Amino acid sequence: MIKYPNMKPVSSNKLGSKTKTFGNRGQSFEDEINDANSYYLNNNRAVIFKKPTPIKVVRMTNDRLNPAKISEAYFVQPSTTDYNGLYRGKYIDFEAKETQNKTLFPLANVHSHQIEHLARVVSHGGIGFILINFRAHQEVFLMDANLVLEYYKKAKSIPYEDFKTRGKEVKVGYVVHVDYLKVVDELYF
Amino acid sequence: MIKYPNMKPVSSNKLGSKTKTFGNRGQSFEDEINDANSYYLNNNRAVIFKKPTPIKVVRMTNDRLNPAKISEAYFVQPSTTDYNGLYRGKYIDFEAKETQNKTLFPLANVHSHQIEHLARVVSHGGIGFILINFRAHQEVFLMDANLVLEYYKKAKSIPYEDFKTRGKEVKVGYVVHVDYLKVVDELYF
Repeated sequence: MIKYPNMKPVSSNKLGSKTKTFGNRGQSFEDEINDANSYYLNNNRAVIFKKPTPIKVVRMTNDRLNPAKISEAYFVQPSTTDYNGLYRGKYIDFEAKETQNKTLFPLANVHSHQIEHLARVVSHGGIGFILINFRAHQEVFLMDANLVLEYYKKAKSIPYEDFKTRGKEVKVGYVVHVDYLKVVDELYF
Repeated sequence: MIKYPNMKPVSSNKLGSKTKTFGNRGQSFEDEINDANSYYLNNNRAVIFKKPTPIKVVRMTNDRLNPAKISEAYFVQPSTTDYNGLYRGKYIDFEAKETQNKTLFPLANVHSHQIEHLARVVSHGGIGFILINFRAHQEVFLMDANLVLEYYKKAKSIPYEDFKTRGKEVKVGYVVHVDYLKVVDELYF
């Protein structure tokens, strides 16, 4: 996991190395969620995509043979969460994060505008939540945006134990590894 | 308007020049829709964003003073439409295009996977449409995704006259220039 200033983490897979994660398949958490979304899409269950990483293009190359090449660009802070889409007629929106921490999830990992965005989603009648991968425990939890907002107002982190009691675990699925829509079904429908 | 291979048009404003468009304010159509979305967001009417342009990062710079600089990247084809979000509890999804053509909108301007995406949105209970800016007429029309799909199956374009009869014009608003949610209210609620 490499972090650049003011941007979200880039999955290590994209940079060539491998990370031990949820399910221990050598895939990054982001890749696993993308796999789940592809499965949902291909099986006509949901239409959920990861938004592209926002990049500010400063300069294109002058090379006539390669006019579409960007030669200077920078990552910029996303204004919303990473994932959104449509499921069972409802707008769905979430942020997914990993932590190595065994006892808590530090809320500094979620930008304030992402929190604001989730609050807006809830107030406009959408489904909003976070998916947290506790890598040390190899456990993934879903927590509803309203609860996340409650913690955000009073604390700097959410205890691991609270994910167990107030969140809902996303169990490892056979067909879809991070089958988070199963938990969405239980919680919101 | 500059087009790169296999990607969507980049608004000319971003590249420093200005274009005469809808309403003739020297803004690109994309900028006008972004303005509308900002207004809707700030006035708590809707939560709709333009997705970032997907860019494949090939190389970061080696410069130690500037480690976050991307030194080689390429635009890639988007897998979905450009805009989506949440309005009055409903998932909303659309593509916005401009044309200089006076008599028709060429459907080649919309990628097949964007059409497929709109079809999925409709089948999963979301609101899907296209917004077309006929620059020669300085008129913007909204056309429902189901109609667009109908044309896509049988023709290479949608006649301008059909936008007038089967689409709905987005009239120039005073506060919000391209106040497309007004038409969404009439058509879908």
